[in-house]
Amino acid sequence: MNVDIGNALAAEATPGVPRAALERLDDRVADAHDRIAAGMADGEFGYAALNLPERADADAIRAAVDPFEDSDVLLTVGIGGSALGAATLVDALDSDLDCYFLDNVDPEYVAALLDGLDLSSTAMHVVSRSGTTAETLANFLVVREAMTDAGVDWTDRTFVTTGRAGNLRELADEHALPALDAPEGAPGRFSVLSTVGLPAAALAGHDVDELLAGGRDGMDALAGSLFDCPAYAYGATAYALDVRGAGINAMMPYAESLETFAEWFAQLWAESLGKDGLGQTPARALGATDQHSQLQLYRAGPRDKLVTLLRPRDRDDHGVPDTDLSGLDYLAGGSLGDLLDAEFEATEASLAESGVPNVRIEIPAVDERSLGRLLFDVEAACVLAGELYGVETFTQPAVEWGKDAARGLLRGDQALREKTELVVD
Amino acid sequence: MNVDIGNALAAEATPGVPRAALERLDDRVADAHDRIAAGMADGEFGYAALNLPERADADAIRAAVDPFEDSDVLLTVGIGGSALGAATLVDALDSDLDCYFLDNVDPEYVAALLDGLDLSSTAMHVVSRSGTTAETLANFLVVREAMTDAGVDWTDRTFVTTGRAGNLRELADEHALPALDAPEGAPGRFSVLSTVGLPAAALAGHDVDELLAGGRDGMDALAGSLFDCPAYAYGATAYALDVRGAGINAMMPYAESLETFAEWFAQLWAESLGKDGLGQTPARALGATDQHSQLQLYRAGPRDKLVTLLRPRDRDDHGVPDTDLSGLDYLAGGSLGDLLDAEFEATEASLAESGVPNVRIEIPAVDERSLGRLLFDVEAACVLAGELYGVETFTQPAVEWGKDAARGLLRGDQALREKTELVVD
Repeated sequence: MNVDIGNALAAEATPGVPRAALERLDDRVADAHDRIAAGMADGEFGYAALNLPERADADAIRAAVDPFEDSDVLLTVGIGGSALGAATLVDALDSDLDCYFLDNVDPEYVAALLDGLDLSSTAMHVVSRSGTTAETLANFLVVREAMTDAGVDWTDRTFVTTGRAGNLRELADEHALPALDAPEGAPGRFSVLSTVGLPAAALAGHDVDELLAGGRDGMDALAGSLFDCPAYAYGATAYALDVRGAGINAMMPYAESLETFAEWFAQLWAESLGKDGLGQTPARALGATDQHSQLQLYRAGPRDKLVTLLRPRDRDDHGVPDTDLSGLDYLAGGSLGDLLDAEFEATEASLAESGVPNVRIEIPAVDERSLGRLLFDVEAACVLAGELYGVETFTQPAVEWGKDAARGLLRGDQALREKTELVVD
Repeated sequence: MNVDIGNALAAEATPGVPRAALERLDDRVADAHDRIAAGMADGEFGYAALNLPERADADAIRAAVDPFEDSDVLLTVGIGGSALGAATLVDALDSDLDCYFLDNVDPEYVAALLDGLDLSSTAMHVVSRSGTTAETLANFLVVREAMTDAGVDWTDRTFVTTGRAGNLRELADEHALPALDAPEGAPGRFSVLSTVGLPAAALAGHDVDELLAGGRDGMDALAGSLFDCPAYAYGATAYALDVRGAGINAMMPYAESLETFAEWFAQLWAESLGKDGLGQTPARALGATDQHSQLQLYRAGPRDKLVTLLRPRDRDDHGVPDTDLSGLDYLAGGSLGDLLDAEFEATEASLAESGVPNVRIEIPAVDERSLGRLLFDVEAACVLAGELYGVETFTQPAVEWGKDAARGLLRGDQALREKTELVVD
C-alpha cells in the first residue's frame, strides 16, 4: 500500500497541513508509535487487535468451515463489527459462494431473504462475542425456526464465533456445533482478520494465509515516523486535516469490489474516534459513480472535507467496442479500466485545482495479500489517530444508552421521557 | 408523510433552532414558496421538475416497456440521476424482476455481471439525456457487444430515455427502439417521477399511477408556511440547523427497502445545495444496523450533525420464536418489527438525551403512494432549502471540470498539471 499526501499539504489545499507542522506532528507520531508498540507487546485490550495477523489460527478457521464446504449459501448472522469485516472480504474477492448478511432486524427483508434460500444448502455463521446481542439472537431464532420448518436440521448447518461463555457458547456445547473463539482483546470493528471475519473468506475459497500475510506486511511496516509508514501517514494526515477544519472524510474507492470496504472504514473511523466531541465523520462514496452525485459538493461546497481516493493499480480490464456514435472518439481503442483510471486522475486533479485536500491510496490489486494489508493499515491508521486525538479508541460507550432503552421499551418496564413534539403533516 | 421537528428546537438540542427564529424564518419560507410556485407555473427550468407528477405520461411509459414484459432481468444503463431514481423505486418495492444498474465503469464488475445474466431474457434501458455521457455510452457499447456475442438481437432487447436529439435518439430512430423523451426542465436528480425513473417500476409491475398520485399529494400539500407543509418543514429545519453548525445530515431510514432512498437523497442534497461554499453534507445511514457503526459518533462526536430518522408506520412483521436462551426475555412474544421500532424510538431518545438535533419523518408504508409522496416532498424540501441558501439549485457546474479533464486524458491531448507528490510506501 502506498499513500500520497501531497494534495493535503497547505501549499495545495485549504484546509491543508503546512509541511513544517507535519514534521512537528511527527514527534507525536513517534510517541504514539511507542505507545502502540507497547500495547501490542503487552497484549493490551484493543492494541492486541493489531497482533491478529500473527495470532489468528487459520487451521482452526478452516476446520470450522470444513463441514460446510458443500454449501451454496453462507448466511452470516451478526451486526456491526460482527458482520462488516466478513462482508468486506467476500464482497472484495470473487467467489461462487452466495453470501448474505442478516445485520438488521427488518422483518420484510428477513422474510424475503429466507423465502428465497434453499436452507438445506445454506450454512449459518452466528457471530456475537457476548452471545446476547438482541438483533443477532432474534435473527438466529428466526433462521433456526425457518430451517426446522423446512425440515433441515439446523445443528448440521450452523457454526458460531463467540466468547468463552454465554448463550451461544452453551448452545454450541449442547449441540456440538463447530465453535470458534472470538479473539481476546479485539473490539468487533478491529476483528476482521480473525475468527470473526475470516470464516466467510475461508468458506468462499479465499486464501486465509495470504490475507493474514498481508496483515503481517502491515505489522512489519509500522515505524516511528509518518514519513516511513503509510498507515501512520494516512492516520496523521486525516487527524491534522480534521483539527484544521476537515471534519468529514469521504472514503471513495474506485472499484465496485471495495464499496463494502468503505462501509467497514466508516464503522472503524466513526466508532473508534467519535467521542468526547471529537472525531472525523466518515462519508461513504464510490468512484466513478459518485462523481455524478457527491463531487459537486466536494469541490464547491464547504471546505470541511478530506477526500480519500483509493484504487488498485492492477485489475482485469474489459475493452470498449469501437463505435461510430458521434463524440465518443476518446473511447476508441480504450477500455473501461482506462476510462475509470482517467476519471480517478481527473477527479483528483479537479479537487486539487479547487484546493480541496485529498489523499491517494494505492494498493497493488484487489487480492488477498493486498486486502489484508489494506485492512491492517487502515486499522493502524485509526489507532494512531486515536492516540493523536487522545480518545479511548477501543470503546463505544455512547451506544449503550440506546440498547438499554430499547430493552426497557420491549419489556414495557421503562418509558422514554416525554419528547417535545412539533409535528407537521 | 409527516415530519416532527420537535427534537431540532433549541430547547432540546445543540445546535438547535429557537422557536422564535423558526417563526421569523417562516416569512422567508413564504417568499420562497411564492418563487417556487411561480417557477412551477411558468415551467421554469428546475422548478418544472415539481410538476412531473402531473406531466408524466404513464401510458407512454407502460407502452415503452410493454415489449419487454417477458424479461426476467432489467439492466438499467445510466449514472447519477439517470440510475438512482429507478434504483430507489425498485429497491423499495418488492418484485420478481431482477434489476441491475450499470452506473459505474468498473471492468471487473461489468464483466462479472454480464457473465451471470441470460441476455436473451434481459431488457436494457439506456438513460442519458445528452446521449453523450461517457460512462453510460461505454457501458451500452459493452452490453450491446455482449448481446451480439450471445446471439441476441440487441435491438429487440433495448429501449432508451433520452433528449430529442443526440446519439441515443439517432440510434433509437435508426433501429426503431422504443424511446421515451427525457423530461424537459428537470435535472436528472429531480426526474425520478418521469420517463427516467418510472420505466423500471412499470416493468417490475409496480403501480405507476399510484406513484404519480403520491407525487400529486405532495404538490397539493405545498403551502406558504413551514408549519403547514411537511416538505418545507423538513427543508427549512435542515437549512436552519446547517447555518447553526449542523453541516452534516445523516439520513437514516429504518427499513432495508429504503437504503437506496438514502443514496438518492444524498445525490439530491449534495448536488443541488453543494455550491458557493455552502450546502449540508449528506451521510447515508441505515437503522438499526448503523446503531452498531455510526451512532457512537452521532451521539458523542462533534455537534455538527442533524440525524433524520425515517420509518414506515406499517410493515409486514415476522414473529421472534420463543426461546429458553438466557437474557432474552424481552424478546418473548415479540416480533422483529417490535424490536426495530423499539430501536428506532430508543435511538431517537438517545440522541435527544444528549442534545443531538434529530427529525422524525414517518410515512404510512413503503408502497407506491407513500413512496411517490416521500420522493416529491424531499425534492420540494431541497428546492426550498436552495432558495433559503440562495444557490442555483438545479445546476452542477463543478463536475464539468473533471469530465473535460478525463476526456482530455483519454485523448492524450491534455496533461494534468503536475501535482505535489509526497508518497509514503
